[in-house]
Amino acid sequence: AKDNGGFVLNGRKDWVINVDRAEFMAVIGAVAENKRKSALRVFIVPRAAQGFSLGIKRRTIGLDHLYIGEAIFNDACIDKGNVIKIDEAGSGYLLLTQTFDLGRAMVGATSVGIARAAYETALDYAENRWQFGAAIRKHQAVAFALAEMATKIEMARLITWKACWLMDQGGDYSVSSAMAKMAASNIAQEVTAQAADILGAAGCEKGSFIEQLVRDARVLTTIEGTNNMQKLVISSQL
Amino acid sequence: AKDNGGFVLNGRKDWVINVDRAEFMAVIGAVAENKRKSALRVFIVPRAAQGFSLGIKRRTIGLDHLYIGEAIFNDACIDKGNVIKIDEAGSGYLLLTQTFDLGRAMVGATSVGIARAAYETALDYAENRWQFGAAIRKHQAVAFALAEMATKIEMARLITWKACWLMDQGGDYSVSSAMAKMAASNIAQEVTAQAADILGAAGCEKGSFIEQLVRDARVLTTIEGTNNMQKLVISSQL
Amino acid sequence: AKDNGGFVLNGRKDWVINVDRAEFMAVIGAVAENKRKSALRVFIVPRAAQGFSLGIKRRTIGLDHLYIGEAIFNDACIDKGNVIKIDEAGSGYLLLTQTFDLGRAMVGATSVGIARAAYETALDYAENRWQFGAAIRKHQAVAFALAEMATKIEMARLITWKACWLMDQGGDYSVSSAMAKMAASNIAQEVTAQAADILGAAGCEKGSFIEQLVRDARVLTTIEGTNNMQKLVISSQL
Amino acid sequence: AKDNGGFVLNGRKDWVINVDRAEFMAVIGAVAENKRKSALRVFIVPRAAQGFSLGIKRRTIGLDHLYIGEAIFNDACIDKGNVIKIDEAGSGYLLLTQTFDLGRAMVGATSVGIARAAYETALDYAENRWQFGAAIRKHQAVAFALAEMATKIEMARLITWKACWLMDQGGDYSVSSAMAKMAASNIAQEVTAQAADILGAAGCEKGSFIEQLVRDARVLTTIEGTNNMQKLVISSQL
Ligand SMILES: Cc1cc2nc3c(=O)[nH]c(=O)nc-3n(C[C@H](O)[C@H](O)[C@H](O)COP(=O)(O)OP(=O)(O)OC[C@H]3O[C@@H](n4cnc5c(N)ncnc54)[C@H](O)[C@@H]3O)c2cc1C
Ligand SMILES: Cc1cc2nc3c(=O)[nH]c(=O)nc-3n(C[C@H](O)[C@H](O)[C@H](O)COP(=O)(O)OP(=O)(O)OC[C@H]3O[C@@H](n4cnc5c(N)ncnc54)[C@H](O)[C@@H]3O)c2cc1C
Ligand SMILES: Cc1cc2nc3c(=O)[nH]c(=O)nc-3n(C[C@H](O)[C@H](O)[C@H](O)COP(=O)(O)OP(=O)(O)OC[C@H]3O[C@@H](n4cnc5c(N)ncnc54)[C@H](O)[C@@H]3O)c2cc1C
Ligand SMILES: Cc1cc2nc3c(=O)[nH]c(=O)nc-3n(C[C@H](O)[C@H](O)[C@H](O)COP(=O)(O)OP(=O)(O)OC[C@H]3O[C@@H](n4cnc5c(N)ncnc54)[C@H](O)[C@@H]3O)c2cc1C
Repeated sequence: AKDNGGFVLNGRKDWVINVDRAEFMAVIGAVAENKRKSALRVFIVPRAAQGFSLGIKRRTIGLDHLYIGEAIFNDACIDKGNVIKIDEAGSGYLLLTQTFDLGRAMVGATSVGIARAAYETALDYAENRWQFGAAIRKHQAVAFALAEMATKIEMARLITWKACWLMDQGGDYSVSSAMAKMAASNIAQEVTAQAADILGAAGCEKGSFIEQLVRDARVLTTIEGTNNMQKLVISSQL
Repeated sequence: AKDNGGFVLNGRKDWVINVDRAEFMAVIGAVAENKRKSALRVFIVPRAAQGFSLGIKRRTIGLDHLYIGEAIFNDACIDKGNVIKIDEAGSGYLLLTQTFDLGRAMVGATSVGIARAAYETALDYAENRWQFGAAIRKHQAVAFALAEMATKIEMARLITWKACWLMDQGGDYSVSSAMAKMAASNIAQEVTAQAADILGAAGCEKGSFIEQLVRDARVLTTIEGTNNMQKLVISSQL
Repeated sequence: AKDNGGFVLNGRKDWVINVDRAEFMAVIGAVAENKRKSALRVFIVPRAAQGFSLGIKRRTIGLDHLYIGEAIFNDACIDKGNVIKIDEAGSGYLLLTQTFDLGRAMVGATSVGIARAAYETALDYAENRWQFGAAIRKHQAVAFALAEMATKIEMARLITWKACWLMDQGGDYSVSSAMAKMAASNIAQEVTAQAADILGAAGCEKGSFIEQLVRDARVLTTIEGTNNMQKLVISSQL
Repeated sequence: AKDNGGFVLNGRKDWVINVDRAEFMAVIGAVAENKRKSALRVFIVPRAAQGFSLGIKRRTIGLDHLYIGEAIFNDACIDKGNVIKIDEAGSGYLLLTQTFDLGRAMVGATSVGIARAAYETALDYAENRWQFGAAIRKHQAVAFALAEMATKIEMARLITWKACWLMDQGGDYSVSSAMAKMAASNIAQEVTAQAADILGAAGCEKGSFIEQLVRDARVLTTIEGTNNMQKLVISSQL
């Protein structure tokens, strides 16, 4: 909502990572009542901004070392200078999609890291745990599961690199980034589950590294747009 | 290890459910040094037995409302009368496999319950959550996921009933029970994950019902014999 | 299109099984221009009916021992007595859905049969083929694949029986039948593929039994309504 | 079997592609009775070699435009000069694994091509086929299936490129090549099946392009070493 030169921002956004400590927040807001795409702009809101306050704190199954919570904007006053491309209709929508494109590749990378950590934990365990007269790594079911896990991680890594490489090239990486996010997050869930299964009871232990990874993987299909959203993005550009 | 008439039991068994409150424990022990199958017997150990103590308490990712921990037997004295079929070579092994057969169908039933609760939570949410101008249940991706979930649960239920029906008939339900445990526990993991995804951010919330169900499902592939063990049981009897 | 007492039927229907030899065909036609659900009736068309002729003959990847082809109705005259529940608005639509409900359970049963034949072929092969110093059945990857196949078939069978049992009970088996068709046809494709893989090069041999089963399974996800249609049916009744 | 300077080759090898037209064949044979790895050498056998003849001709479910059949060596005389690295113990085994490493990446590439052709056929069909008042591409189930197919193909392509890039670098591409073969061949089967399903009845038509692709994909999991063999290769080098 506009006001002599600057803007007065009202609204709430839940589930924001680092909302308690960010120096600045990038908020997508409408500069007109209609809230159409053309009305959207990015507002850079400093934490100290009057009218900004923290709402509910969220506790999540995974990535629970992060502060996640609600940002409340109650007649927050934003300087004109803090609104990006203020005169460009729809600039906010464009920047939003671009931010998502960047963020999605980043979730791809996070997914690869989580999957890889789980895989390495399982491989190490499988070499040292003996059952039925052999390191469990020697049992084909375990060995083949490890081979599948390594292969999936390699694919998740390469599709994420592809998106990042396109970014560096300055090309259009929207589809590539959505593919990376969707594929890698699914793979992270599959691989962490397979890894935990290889650890047997030890894979069920609360507070263990593998248990943390299983829980972290759980949120990856949802953040930065659910995987259904990725499919909407991809399928609209085939 | 034998001792004038009765037995002296030594050893440890980790990850035992209700070990803190069970009146009696059924312990599989060897009555001879060799520890061959023929030497195994079931010992009924009262909690008050001298030489029994609790070891480490385990905290688990799921089913974490249960007390799970270690049983320690340190020269625990067991009366002859507390050893089942003491004179029958291998009776312990037979009873062990029979206990597993019963327990596996029970894990099948637990899996169906967990999956069903997750499905019903998701269905309810999908009817009430609006996005893109419609209850999300109206979006085909969500509707079809619900259809798949319902179908999988129906299969998990029927294969578990089959095992239980065989029990009631007095037939051989070893394979059937292993199938029920394996299939239903896998389905419980798939369905709870699909359900949580339908809830979006709400599906990631620590302390919520769906989050509990996701974590509970995680242990089902491991308890009562990992699913690899079920495949060993099944494949050896095809 | 109506005509003094009887009807004149015009139109074509492609991909009809046994169209060359059926004594009678059940055709869903509209008795009014509007073609709304209420206008639909079932016409029993004898093969000898004037105005009926065979169109293109279809050759299919699977179930290719059947004659499948096009039925052409060119001013075919149908007696009033050959129109079922002629005065009941929408009777045709109702009978159509009931026919599908029956047919779907039947495709479920066909799927179970095809999957089972493939599984038995693979089991037999695995017991007699030696590689790496053992019957391949002894290699865990093969043994566990067989265990998975047997478990899936058991689920396909039970969900199909459930639909058939509901039919016998006179209950509403629409959802159950759609579930059976969808689940069992998917399982038939998975199991025939796994079975062919167990046979190695022998699983690729044109003219072999397993090759026939692989091809037969391919059409099961499409006939009697594609699996997307089953999901529409199921999800609309959850 | 050795003979004054040259060798006399005896044996049969079934399922050889282009066996009827190859100018030369690379045959792995043993130069000593024991048939140990160290005894293996590669023999370059010209087609005109005395003692070589064609055996049974194989007809396969897929890649059936190729001649595939049996090579029979009946006291075939091979010049010393046609045996590669004749004095190097085990050279044949090494060359065999290197040939497989090359061939596997090639099967990866074939798989990508087959999957891509199926995907493009389905995309094209989905844009032009109308059902329920819209191009079927507009139905989310079809749109999302296309998005999944495109993503899988991208992963198959990248993991195949990675193996080929390693070859060009002169690095060790054994694991990479096995991963490419396994992943891409599985993806080719999944994608061709999804594509055929999108075409509905048209996807079942014998003689159509999509039907050819479905059948071609079927052999990819078996040739150049079954996918279980790939898992053996991968898991032994993790
Ligand atoms: C929540 C919870 C509750 C439990 N409650 C009880 C209880 O009440 N009483 C009780 O006695 N126990 C209980 N257990 C223990 C449980 O039965 C074991 O954890 C389970 O049988 C697996 O054994 P493990 O953890 O030693 O795994 P391991 O045997 O070490 O297995 C590790 C991995 O190797 C694989 N593996 C091992 N051998 C083979 C092989 N031959 N071929 C292929 N793969 C193989 C396994 O599948 C697994 O993936 C509980 C466990 C949990 C997590
Ligand atoms: C751990 C975590 C951290 C987060 N961090 C941030 C952050 O820093 N900043 C921020 O802005 N947000 C953040 N979010 C929010 C996140 O972006 C959203 O949760 C996510 O976009 C999904 O939105 P939703 O939860 O409202 O789900 P909904 O949009 O309500 O979706 C519910 C379900 O419906 C499906 N659905 C909805 N519409 C359609 C459709 N048209 N077709 C098919 N299916 C559909 C979805 O796929 C999902 O399965 C975070 C969330 C989590 C869990
Ligand atoms: C279309 C086609 C073209 C071909 N072209 C050629 C060619 O040009 N040149 C050539 O030399 N060959 C060729 N082949 C042969 C091909 O390489 C073999 O078919 C393939 O390696 C599998 O061998 P097999 O058929 O003997 O299967 P088997 O070795 O009998 O395997 C049967 C099953 O057992 C499994 N198995 C076997 N051992 C193990 C184990 N230790 N652990 C786990 N599982 C195991 C396999 O995975 C498979 O599922 C071709 C085959 C086909 C179908
Ligand atoms: C071997 C064989 C035998 C047959 N026998 C008979 C027979 O005896 N009698 C008879 O009447 N018919 C028969 N059929 C026809 C069969 O019933 C149809 O092929 C089937 O119903 C699919 O219709 P379609 O081919 O027109 O596909 P389409 O309806 O064109 O579907 C194309 C694709 O779009 C998808 N789709 C369409 N609409 C939607 C939507 N709203 N939402 C999501 N996805 C959608 C479908 O799932 C499919 O993937 C036979 C077919 C085959 C292959």
